[in-house]
Amino acid sequence: MTEVAGNTSRRAVSRRLFTGGVAAALVPASLAPAAAAERTGSARTAAAVRAAGEERLLTLYAEKVGDNQLGYGLKPGEATIPGPLLEMYEGDTLRIELVNLTDEAVSLHVHGVDYEIDSDGTRMNKSIVEPGERGNYTWKSHVPGRREDGTWRPGSAGYWHYHDHVVGTDHGTGGIRRGLYGGLIVRREGDALPDKQVTIVYNDMTINNLPADQSFDFTATVGDRVEMLVITHGEYYHTFHVHGHRWADNRTGLLDGPDDRSRIVDTKITGPAESFGFQVIAGEGVGPGAWMHHCHVQSHADMGMAGLFLVADEDGNIPGHDPGHH
Amino acid sequence: MTEVAGNTSRRAVSRRLFTGGVAAALVPASLAPAAAAERTGSARTAAAVRAAGEERLLTLYAEKVGDNQLGYGLKPGEATIPGPLLEMYEGDTLRIELVNLTDEAVSLHVHGVDYEIDSDGTRMNKSIVEPGERGNYTWKSHVPGRREDGTWRPGSAGYWHYHDHVVGTDHGTGGIRRGLYGGLIVRREGDALPDKQVTIVYNDMTINNLPADQSFDFTATVGDRVEMLVITHGEYYHTFHVHGHRWADNRTGLLDGPDDRSRIVDTKITGPAESFGFQVIAGEGVGPGAWMHHCHVQSHADMGMAGLFLVADEDGNIPGHDPGHH
Amino acid sequence: MTEVAGNTSRRAVSRRLFTGGVAAALVPASLAPAAAAERTGSARTAAAVRAAGEERLLTLYAEKVGDNQLGYGLKPGEATIPGPLLEMYEGDTLRIELVNLTDEAVSLHVHGVDYEIDSDGTRMNKSIVEPGERGNYTWKSHVPGRREDGTWRPGSAGYWHYHDHVVGTDHGTGGIRRGLYGGLIVRREGDALPDKQVTIVYNDMTINNLPADQSFDFTATVGDRVEMLVITHGEYYHTFHVHGHRWADNRTGLLDGPDDRSRIVDTKITGPAESFGFQVIAGEGVGPGAWMHHCHVQSHADMGMAGLFLVADEDGNIPGHDPGHH
Repeated sequence: MTEVAGNTSRRAVSRRLFTGGVAAALVPASLAPAAAAERTGSARTAAAVRAAGEERLLTLYAEKVGDNQLGYGLKPGEATIPGPLLEMYEGDTLRIELVNLTDEAVSLHVHGVDYEIDSDGTRMNKSIVEPGERGNYTWKSHVPGRREDGTWRPGSAGYWHYHDHVVGTDHGTGGIRRGLYGGLIVRREGDALPDKQVTIVYNDMTINNLPADQSFDFTATVGDRVEMLVITHGEYYHTFHVHGHRWADNRTGLLDGPDDRSRIVDTKITGPAESFGFQVIAGEGVGPGAWMHHCHVQSHADMGMAGLFLVADEDGNIPGHDPGHH
Repeated sequence: MTEVAGNTSRRAVSRRLFTGGVAAALVPASLAPAAAAERTGSARTAAAVRAAGEERLLTLYAEKVGDNQLGYGLKPGEATIPGPLLEMYEGDTLRIELVNLTDEAVSLHVHGVDYEIDSDGTRMNKSIVEPGERGNYTWKSHVPGRREDGTWRPGSAGYWHYHDHVVGTDHGTGGIRRGLYGGLIVRREGDALPDKQVTIVYNDMTINNLPADQSFDFTATVGDRVEMLVITHGEYYHTFHVHGHRWADNRTGLLDGPDDRSRIVDTKITGPAESFGFQVIAGEGVGPGAWMHHCHVQSHADMGMAGLFLVADEDGNIPGHDPGHH
Repeated sequence: MTEVAGNTSRRAVSRRLFTGGVAAALVPASLAPAAAAERTGSARTAAAVRAAGEERLLTLYAEKVGDNQLGYGLKPGEATIPGPLLEMYEGDTLRIELVNLTDEAVSLHVHGVDYEIDSDGTRMNKSIVEPGERGNYTWKSHVPGRREDGTWRPGSAGYWHYHDHVVGTDHGTGGIRRGLYGGLIVRREGDALPDKQVTIVYNDMTINNLPADQSFDFTATVGDRVEMLVITHGEYYHTFHVHGHRWADNRTGLLDGPDDRSRIVDTKITGPAESFGFQVIAGEGVGPGAWMHHCHVQSHADMGMAGLFLVADEDGNIPGHDPGHH
């Protein structure tokens, strides 16, 4: 891959790309620590000045995970469900080589960014990878701009995701069900950067393909800026809910200012292949605690689509929390 | 409770808190009249100057309603489904004592406002109330403000709700199904105030737990500013629709001005524990009539998830309406 | 009908009203070409000055289509599914005579615009049309304006639709299922005008009532401004997705400018009777290709809720596209 250089904030993002995301996926109960470099400045935002349009190379490996699941990983034997959380800044290009270590054709289809038809990830567009082979996908992104006709072209910034589009059916139904999906965040210069990140995928009746009796818990300390990327896959609609924390239902999850009429929510309906994200300040106005997050469709919650957002105080204590009880 | 004082608009809101909401719930066909005091000023908005952060005390009673239903009420024997419509202004605190008159543990879990973990309303966080006992919940709210890091913290204003989180399952599936839910509106200073209010809860395949053969009707006069709070609970997604009236799909349901690009809708998909609200001017541009409101999922409407928004002219007439026919 | 005159942009819109919409419905694989007159000006927007509040007359015919389907059409024997795409500018009035050529009562119920109760299209409000008879419906629209109380009344602009409300059940479940629906676009002066338009209706498990083995394809050339109006009907929720193209999740699908925080999406959950629309520049940033559009609920896509957005280059070529393969 191209070594990242230029300014500290980009270095921080790059490090998270190749470590943070993986850690979050591998170890659900502990979020990847953000680099100290991100905390420069009062707003923890990226430096205003940076090099334009970086191009990076990345290798993804598709392989079996456990019994009958599949995952993407950054190294052989390290695939996770969800796959690594990838990040770009608007204007960046990501060139991905997908290595297929499974025994069936797989692919990579992305939402939100720009790709030519040969990076579509579909059988129809001949952009799938046979077992034991390698294939290439190029994802580009762009800043907002005014078109010649006077209208605005939106930038690529958003909380997006990628997934297989060929295992099982030509829509990737089998690949998605078995774990071939991951998150992609495209940031705009100036967007606030998080201290911690977590990817939460409602895939059929699971969170991140975990068995129903395994709680998807993650931790933070009061005051941490925690970014949650929520993706849905499969057959069902869900309503994502987190206790004690709210966000703005817009591109960033944050408000422009006090007059911004974006709806503030703590519950959001979402269907297959939708994604959204936001940042909350852990325990803001509510303090530490074991804050549930769960699908609010009652039967889904009762069947185990729930976990804990564990917010500790400065001493590491979580009041009232009994680790043995959910 | 703390007596409310200071200015007329707060008094009006407070009166609605303890009477209007209950009337709306008890007598679906007639909305609670708003206090004349609210009509001061050309925009019917709250006075700009008021005391900051009031704290109020409130007792809620959980008890059986009818055969096998449960409800919250402001006095013993007066529980309703939905429970009383509660209102706060950003900055206010509500201290609620929940008295459990049922024969099983109940709780109070709220969406949208701030509470510490001991007001979570969950078994896990030991904030449930055993039969015959009393428990305390504190809900706080806050105005928008700029954080130290430069980002904006949203205010608490919104169309929210509360419900049980322990009857039947640890997610309150049984309590919600049987009627333990109600609405909460948090206003921002300057928000327009309604003349009439109604809470519409799509709970599984019912509206407000009414039997399918009972129509949820409510009345207004042309020109009334009618506020609708729509809450969903249970298992199913729905699409709330009202004939002849529309709203902006944002925090207030109103536009900032003519350039506001919020989507204007008359139908909105909604899933369990989501809530939204808006204000319409009864009959604006369309006149009086028996305007249907219904879930637009076809089988749900056909099975009875429908009612009438009865808009009378100045003489009390509803053209073409035959009270005996739905 | 009243002949349309006054300025070129209105003439273009009117022509599309009576030809474009029909062509799009009749010939799914080819979008109706927009009039050259729309391309005046750098932004392809409507002329700023036009006559206020035009009133037009229109006759719609409800009749059988094929075996057991029903459709609306502008002439006898020319009914389509969806029915003709109708367009208005805010302030316009549309007077529609509905001629019922079927053997059961039908009606016309519209979303988004203003109508008095006798144009409701419901049995209850005696606004249905018996077999062999004619009935009248008046749809009005309005520009945004400030109310006497200081709040803003939204304008009628939006991506709306119309449908039967009486065949099968009093909610029109049978009429909708069999094809009695169509699109309605209300524009605001200054809104960008498209080069091509397509109406996509997710009706139960079909697109535009097409059989599962028939792909709903439509074509454009790189650079065309393509407007998609997406409507949902029936029983199920869906997630509309198109490959390689995105839009803003707001009234217009376009941004105000670079600071607009509207969420940018390429997938959107939608339920019965919801509608939304947007404009994309075909192939913008991604080039020509056979871009899939499909419901992203996996089983729905697998069962055939999919089609192709065929974007050709300037020479008419679609790279990698094999017309015989989907």
